[in-house]
Amino acid sequence: MRTIAIFGFMSMFLTVSCQDSVPLDSHDTLVDLTHSFDTTTIYWPTAEGFQLHEDAKGWQEGGYYYESNSFESSEHGGTHLDAPVHFAEGKWANHEIPLDRLIGDGVVVDVSDRVADNRDYQISVSDLQEWEAVNGQIPEDAIVLLKTGFGRYWPNRDQYLGTDLRGAEGVSQLHFPGLAPEAARWLRDTRNIRAVGIDTASIDYGQSSDYVSHQELFADNIPVFENVANLEALPANGFTIVALPMKIYGGSGGPLRIIAMVHN
Amino acid sequence: MRTIAIFGFMSMFLTVSCQDSVPLDSHDTLVDLTHSFDTTTIYWPTAEGFQLHEDAKGWQEGGYYYESNSFESSEHGGTHLDAPVHFAEGKWANHEIPLDRLIGDGVVVDVSDRVADNRDYQISVSDLQEWEAVNGQIPEDAIVLLKTGFGRYWPNRDQYLGTDLRGAEGVSQLHFPGLAPEAARWLRDTRNIRAVGIDTASIDYGQSSDYVSHQELFADNIPVFENVANLEALPANGFTIVALPMKIYGGSGGPLRIIAMVHN
Repeated sequence: MRTIAIFGFMSMFLTVSCQDSVPLDSHDTLVDLTHSFDTTTIYWPTAEGFQLHEDAKGWQEGGYYYESNSFESSEHGGTHLDAPVHFAEGKWANHEIPLDRLIGDGVVVDVSDRVADNRDYQISVSDLQEWEAVNGQIPEDAIVLLKTGFGRYWPNRDQYLGTDLRGAEGVSQLHFPGLAPEAARWLRDTRNIRAVGIDTASIDYGQSSDYVSHQELFADNIPVFENVANLEALPANGFTIVALPMKIYGGSGGPLRIIAMVHN
Repeated sequence: MRTIAIFGFMSMFLTVSCQDSVPLDSHDTLVDLTHSFDTTTIYWPTAEGFQLHEDAKGWQEGGYYYESNSFESSEHGGTHLDAPVHFAEGKWANHEIPLDRLIGDGVVVDVSDRVADNRDYQISVSDLQEWEAVNGQIPEDAIVLLKTGFGRYWPNRDQYLGTDLRGAEGVSQLHFPGLAPEAARWLRDTRNIRAVGIDTASIDYGQSSDYVSHQELFADNIPVFENVANLEALPANGFTIVALPMKIYGGSGGPLRIIAMVHN
């Protein structure tokens, strides 16, 4: 924020020109935390995956060039939002989530060293407390990003999910780290956070069969971002997250474009 | 930016705490400029419209509640991005647009009084110059939002598009305002803008058959946002636009979540 401080100081003498000529991002480095949607995009083993249909491509009789497509997708593939109603009856659907729950100061809790020899690792309360011992308490209204390092496996399904299999058999073979239910409760009850994101396919670890971490967070309307990309490019803090889902009315989630504005 | 100026001045003495505890939006009022996607969402007369498929909803054998959907859509319905490749061969596809072309200071050019008695009105160079006479030159790197007032007709197809008809017959009966080709060229060649948005179904007016305004803007890789909502809630300037499309690899466009951060 030092740049904003200096700019802010200057702008006290240049308020009019600054008001119209200095976008917020001129202070920040923009980082895209989103995987593209294509045929390689990873979805849950029971989902069909992203399908793009080419409706038109090429020069038209009217003498102009034209391309247009349509597509099919599950709400819960690729980089996506889990709305609280995904696992909590009566809680917020996609379109009901206030924008200010999707935008805020971000922190990255890096547990990649702990998952290196354990694909089934569950991020614990002590992992979060160790982060705070180094970086200070997770700030009010923070968006907490959990970095397992699994983002580097994308789009290799076998490495990222722990299996290439589809359907129920694939679900039973999922092996990737997640957030432990106790840690989800701790974040919900002791830290006033806006949202949680992770660089794996689910906030619950792959071997979960009851998805308790989802349930604990959604009980308090805390949105979750899954398959988040490029967490390696972020510092532990000092950035703002803007996470904007496709606005599906009544959706249990949806494709998410999530970016970081890193303060220089 | 006055608030940021004051905050910035303070932060010179509070840099550490500010860095971690003051999200950008704490200064701003957030305005969602996005229509929801549902069965009433307006698409081009030749497109099928948004379809949501309920894959699961209710209490599961595992003892937890669960909802999940999949969906189908054209890239160019509802509030959406037109990527330059939509009408310009070899120009940017959806995933190739740099984030800094989608984020920046916004301005609203209000022509709603001019379209009131002419649904086929095309926004002219003099309309843009009249805005500048009052508000100063359109700033460098601005995102220019064109307010025709047609947003108030949403989701009434007949009032918004000028016709309820589908298919080619519907296209021939489209009557809504747009940006004149000369004005598109003027913005492209004399003002260094990042993107253009409008509260109608197309940047070219409804009766266009060659879509020249699209071609002129896309020739210089200027992205377009269509069916933008809630422009009535914005001032003429003094806000930042963040426009994040679903990241469709090779897409000619896609569903767009667009918001304004209005500086208080």
